Amino acid sequence: MKSYLKMSRKELEELKEQLTKEYREFQGKNLSLDMSRGKPSAEQLDLTMPMMDVLNSKSDLIASDGIDCRNYGDLNGIYEARKLMADVMGVAPEYVAVYGSSSLNIMYDTVCRAVVHGIMGSTPWSKLEKVKFLCPAPGYDRHFALTESFGIELIPVEMTPTGPDMDVVEKYVNNDETVKGIWCVPKYSNPTGVTYSDETVRRFAALHPKAADFRIYWDNAYAVHDLYEDDQDELLNIFEECKKVGKVDMVYGFASTSKVTFSGGGLAAIAASANNMEDIKKDLSLQTICFDKINQLRHARYLKDVETLKQHMKKHAAIIRPKFEAVLNALNKELSGAEIGSWTTPKGGYFISFNALEGCATEIVKKAKEAGVKLTGAGATYPYKKDPKDSNIRIAPTYPSVEELKQAVELFVLCVKLTSVEKLLENENELQKGA
Amino acid sequence: MKSYLKMSRKELEELKEQLTKEYREFQGKNLSLDMSRGKPSAEQLDLTMPMMDVLNSKSDLIASDGIDCRNYGDLNGIYEARKLMADVMGVAPEYVAVYGSSSLNIMYDTVCRAVVHGIMGSTPWSKLEKVKFLCPAPGYDRHFALTESFGIELIPVEMTPTGPDMDVVEKYVNNDETVKGIWCVPKYSNPTGVTYSDETVRRFAALHPKAADFRIYWDNAYAVHDLYEDDQDELLNIFEECKKVGKVDMVYGFASTSKVTFSGGGLAAIAASANNMEDIKKDLSLQTICFDKINQLRHARYLKDVETLKQHMKKHAAIIRPKFEAVLNALNKELSGAEIGSWTTPKGGYFISFNALEGCATEIVKKAKEAGVKLTGAGATYPYKKDPKDSNIRIAPTYPSVEELKQAVELFVLCVKLTSVEKLLENENELQKGA
Repeated sequence: MKSYLKMSRKELEELKEQLTKEYREFQGKNLSLDMSRGKPSAEQLDLTMPMMDVLNSKSDLIASDGIDCRNYGDLNGIYEARKLMADVMGVAPEYVAVYGSSSLNIMYDTVCRAVVHGIMGSTPWSKLEKVKFLCPAPGYDRHFALTESFGIELIPVEMTPTGPDMDVVEKYVNNDETVKGIWCVPKYSNPTGVTYSDETVRRFAALHPKAADFRIYWDNAYAVHDLYEDDQDELLNIFEECKKVGKVDMVYGFASTSKVTFSGGGLAAIAASANNMEDIKKDLSLQTICFDKINQLRHARYLKDVETLKQHMKKHAAIIRPKFEAVLNALNKELSGAEIGSWTTPKGGYFISFNALEGCATEIVKKAKEAGVKLTGAGATYPYKKDPKDSNIRIAPTYPSVEELKQAVELFVLCVKLTSVEKLLENENELQKGA
Repeated sequence: MKSYLKMSRKELEELKEQLTKEYREFQGKNLSLDMSRGKPSAEQLDLTMPMMDVLNSKSDLIASDGIDCRNYGDLNGIYEARKLMADVMGVAPEYVAVYGSSSLNIMYDTVCRAVVHGIMGSTPWSKLEKVKFLCPAPGYDRHFALTESFGIELIPVEMTPTGPDMDVVEKYVNNDETVKGIWCVPKYSNPTGVTYSDETVRRFAALHPKAADFRIYWDNAYAVHDLYEDDQDELLNIFEECKKVGKVDMVYGFASTSKVTFSGGGLAAIAASANNMEDIKKDLSLQTICFDKINQLRHARYLKDVETLKQHMKKHAAIIRPKFEAVLNALNKELSGAEIGSWTTPKGGYFISFNALEGCATEIVKKAKEAGVKLTGAGATYPYKKDPKDSNIRIAPTYPSVEELKQAVELFVLCVKLTSVEKLLENENELQKGA
């Protein structure tokens, strides 16, 4: 395909006319498709239906540690559920509390606790003039919104193919006492699909935070969410790396089964050192008596162990792989060589990250919406929803069917092309005015 | 029985000798019983086992509003679960959000939100010099501990047979801007069993709080927890009373099915006005994507409606009524006329509240513990765990079997008698010294 950047004004104008015509045709189709959120499809959720039979009225609802799951007690969660989530997170079960159904809720509570009560005796953040969080970007919008709601200043850090720009991370963390945390999705990152390199993880472990209450918020949301059996990313275990250098208090780990079993009805867990866990439990014991242990038992008995869980994840992969491929094929076919966008080819996770020409993302999302395809809002992947280049768009291919996706991505590439042509013509007009 | 207060020194000393002998015999029995927490017994939990069959792999997990309960979405909870909890709480379903499994957790979050973000635009409590909560006492220890953890000052208000002393409540709420809330368990109150009278509820609705962000924290934990079919307390609906006087924003209501279905594995809900709900949802949407809707659906399909739920509660009553009666019979038989204690005869809820002679509660609990019966810590029912009279002891009769309870209460009355005799002798010694 010819590069749009090398087209003459006349070529661009002709192309614009053609693309506008195609776009109008799309508008007549009354599409209503959604590529905006990382939700599993109904077909994926069907995979877990046998879990509904695991516990029934004839079941023994006594956990392996002798606790009756139907009654109060066991704030940290039953052993078999902790063991399962610990294996997913690569830590010992005693480091893990299974804590409701939503890892986002655990992260919210963890930040909130630091704001109100402080971490391990440090000053509560609400009493400090300024608190900053590093936000590798593009990243997960809900992480950013959560910290923003507490008045925490969000500092964007550029994502590279090996993880966040660690030079910038080190400079901030090791020198600035107001930097109290960094949001990380270290494997199949949202939305870039990047898995942090071994060197990046080691550099995280080697941080010397200026603030004693600095923590790495390690949201391992896609720990077991590989797309391919024979080509998987391996993430170095940050708890082990931190332990080697005596800094195991520096990390909070988070994970859930929301994209393993049922979304919002799964298990969520926190992994933290003994010191951190003691600190957390002090407040947690005021917050609730216990979490739903019946759902914990149901999960533990159904998923059995991390190996069985990984077999289960292969079935998810078989469903969503063709969806990723449908999007990627269309992008490759329609945009390769056009030099109006670049995109990631992830080996796992839930997203494809697309970078348009500067200044085009908002308009692409708008055009797609007006023709019936909902995309994540432009800018959503950046702190304060401000993408400095107005370039990044997150594509979530898991929820629609392959057929729907093919339509949606056809419209998407059309919107990319049309917006890019308009932009290039606009740039040329401005150049002429300037000349 | 002869009043202990009328016994001569010699009589008391003889009695002490006899009681000490009996107490030593008890110590030899190696009892290990627990009357400390309001937990249902295994037999009660068995009542809900059929709920485990309601959803299975062949089920339709689509809620009445068309939402797939297996996926993300519906932050407020599915309609049928909200309707059920709304009927329990006596409000319209649009006032209700079903919010996890733990009403304590909702209360914690509600207070925390006010501390961090403020209520409907008011100054966050963390920015105020002083925040006070009124604490009807004796009351629920976890309420008090929760607010204490945020540095909120706890003001005890005396419980009367019709509810908190409303003269004191009115004086504080209507005049002191730092008073931001009051904890209420309005029906079958923990631990006194008192249900607030109609006049008390009306006086609550008629409050003119000095603080715009004052709220009544109305924990209707025992809304449907009657012991007798033919003798039940009726609680006036505070939402309706507040609506009549245009103050529906003044109340947050809380309830759960922890003592209806499974403890810690049930449904918890908040009821609040449209304004309050909007205010809550603003933060809640940052906190989590949704709660476990599968458990909501399971409950809604099993419990069906509030009438079916009340039938279910009759089965609970049939199990725990004999336990309350075992305790009350022993207290009546062993302590009537002795003038060394008074106790409540509740028509519902989970507790019997016992008042010993002043200065005796700590010693009674200690003696019981040393002979193998665990009671709620003396003082626990008061703010800061300080019972000014060291008199109140909460008895929780639901968890042990009737046989165990009979033993436990036999020891309990013995400890009451022995401690009282020791106290009376001590008082006499002091009087003599003074003379």
